[in-house]
Amino acid sequence: MIVLGIDPGSRRTGWGVVRQDGSLLRLVAAGVLEPAADQALHLRLAFLHLGMRRLLETHRPDVVGVESVFHGPNTRSLVVLGQARGALLATVGEAGVELVDLSPAEVKKALTGRGGARKDQLAHMVRAMLGTQAERLDGVPDKLPLDATDALGVAIATLHRRRIAGLARG
Amino acid sequence: MIVLGIDPGSRRTGWGVVRQDGSLLRLVAAGVLEPAADQALHLRLAFLHLGMRRLLETHRPDVVGVESVFHGPNTRSLVVLGQARGALLATVGEAGVELVDLSPAEVKKALTGRGGARKDQLAHMVRAMLGTQAERLDGVPDKLPLDATDALGVAIATLHRRRIAGLARG
Repeated sequence: MIVLGIDPGSRRTGWGVVRQDGSLLRLVAAGVLEPAADQALHLRLAFLHLGMRRLLETHRPDVVGVESVFHGPNTRSLVVLGQARGALLATVGEAGVELVDLSPAEVKKALTGRGGARKDQLAHMVRAMLGTQAERLDGVPDKLPLDATDALGVAIATLHRRRIAGLARG
Repeated sequence: MIVLGIDPGSRRTGWGVVRQDGSLLRLVAAGVLEPAADQALHLRLAFLHLGMRRLLETHRPDVVGVESVFHGPNTRSLVVLGQARGALLATVGEAGVELVDLSPAEVKKALTGRGGARKDQLAHMVRAMLGTQAERLDGVPDKLPLDATDALGVAIATLHRRRIAGLARG
């Protein structure tokens, strides 16, 4: 089972690929999609669309996980974030890959057991769960950027929900 | 000069193509992109993405006009609308077509001379400016749906801005 987690943002979109082999989680690759800040809106969105298509083609995930977002500092930022999500999710839909939408609380709970964990605690857990394997794999920088860490947390939480769903069926 | 105006919505996205021949405006085609309401979010967004690509390929507009939106009944609706915009605008960017973003007040002013015109006044002006040509063209239903009329209003306002920009240069 291969999961691609994404943490959408208009400026920086984190992504991370995690593979589950039996009970073992492996970090496959992670990074950030960052459109040129001086480009026009529709070109930045096209950059996200094409970047996401390349990730889907390269890593062929079984499922894509994304965090739902319905809060922001102001209405403009919500529309801007929604636009980035729309460009990314349309690409997932075009590829026919399954999408899992997780609440921020669900991601936190899957990683730390608590729905109210702090951002640095989440990053710590992601590194603890995946970090040691990073050196052995291609495409992962020595130091993961924070957006990529967040995306890996979403990927782990997506696998967590799948495992629980599997247990419920079994 | 061919302009495609769009009026993005998560449920219904209006579109309208207007061609300017000298001082004459012609209605080329108009309609609504309406994803199946029971489909998952990413599939509805992919529907908008593929529908927009087809419109760009069919009508080859010189410019696409879209109304900027930073108001909504609640934060959730803003994210949902942003997502539809993102799927549509990424497609415009991918095709390398120029995008013009207009405020609602600019659209109203271009059509009626006033920034505070009512929605039914806008629809009336659009029909008055383009309606008589509708019967003579393919792909336009007898009675335009309201979303398509709104999109045609955006297309006309986009041409209006271009004309003013042209006069300023000339």
